[in-house]
Amino acid sequence: MSDILNALQSTIRERHSADPARSYVAKLQAGGVSNIARKLGEEAVETIIAALSADDAALTSEAADLVFHLLVLLDGRDIAFADVEAELVRREGVSGLTEKASRTE
Amino acid sequence: MSDILNALQSTIRERHSADPARSYVAKLQAGGVSNIARKLGEEAVETIIAALSADDAALTSEAADLVFHLLVLLDGRDIAFADVEAELVRREGVSGLTEKASRTE
Amino acid sequence: MSDILNALQSTIRERHSADPARSYVAKLQAGGVSNIARKLGEEAVETIIAALSADDAALTSEAADLVFHLLVLLDGRDIAFADVEAELVRREGVSGLTEKASRTE
Amino acid sequence: MSDILNALQSTIRERHSADPARSYVAKLQAGGVSNIARKLGEEAVETIIAALSADDAALTSEAADLVFHLLVLLDGRDIAFADVEAELVRREGVSGLTEKASRTE
Repeated sequence: MSDILNALQSTIRERHSADPARSYVAKLQAGGVSNIARKLGEEAVETIIAALSADDAALTSEAADLVFHLLVLLDGRDIAFADVEAELVRREGVSGLTEKASRTE
Repeated sequence: MSDILNALQSTIRERHSADPARSYVAKLQAGGVSNIARKLGEEAVETIIAALSADDAALTSEAADLVFHLLVLLDGRDIAFADVEAELVRREGVSGLTEKASRTE
Repeated sequence: MSDILNALQSTIRERHSADPARSYVAKLQAGGVSNIARKLGEEAVETIIAALSADDAALTSEAADLVFHLLVLLDGRDIAFADVEAELVRREGVSGLTEKASRTE
Repeated sequence: MSDILNALQSTIRERHSADPARSYVAKLQAGGVSNIARKLGEEAVETIIAALSADDAALTSEAADLVFHLLVLLDGRDIAFADVEAELVRREGVSGLTEKASRTE
């Protein structure tokens, strides 16, 4: 659990109940899960549009927005991103990932 | 870059040009970026719907699908997931993430 | 209420409770509102992708899919498409529409 | 072509090249097709979320937003909404619609 996304989710969790006037994460959480889901959908749309453009920086930026809001959404439902990673490892087709992650560490 | 998503993207890259009849990743890539973007959009919709249900396992599973197809999409555009992580670290509000990742390693 | 979309919604309503094995509309309704909403989302994604292509026939076809599934979704919630039209007429910016519709009849 | 949506699309066409500072439609068109497609996607997401709520007025309102932006998108690509209606009539499963529309007029 040493990677950047898990660290980011920890930061998001710390800000969950902060002052919505001062924290974007707290503002999202104050709006409820459906509000965060709406934002996730908007970022997915922007990722699709960037994917169909030729602009690598735009796609990288939109993908970052999408991942960020996915982490906020999961936190809003008290689901650890590590559980999503575990699900990816568990699936057929990504077997060997854990071993690979170990090897490259 | 030792975490699970970067390992998964490496696996996706290895399968990029495999036989589309035998590899789901190769089939997606054979369909082109707009085909992968379409799948990403479908998974985002399913993530939104799962988020509005009370089913944690469903949301975890849909989030895994969304992340998987995002990695395939980025690979289809030759963008490393590490670049998306770097973008997340660079942004205001996630400062301290690199330090945090170091501390927890 | 003499136009094509209202006629189409009447047809959709007639098929609402048909045999799901024989009617696509009945199959959608049997899956519930969240299932129809998922399909609407998929059609919206395809409409976006077609809009960014140069293919007019593709965009026309995807727009038709989107409208069709919107009518099914509204029927699944017992909302008449005429109510959506009334909402469009009511809004600022479309004043004069009713008058215009009358004039062109 | 006497119905409300075709009248609305005519209004949208009249505003296509208006002053973006004074017309929402002109502002959307000035942003280009990808900008309108992005807005369509956002409205589709909001329609999905409203569909999963129990609020009929919210769903009616979001459906109106979705239809409005679809008309703007089609206009941005110089496609008449009547072509989308013709596509719906042409499809298997909606045969008889033209006859039905005639009957109910």
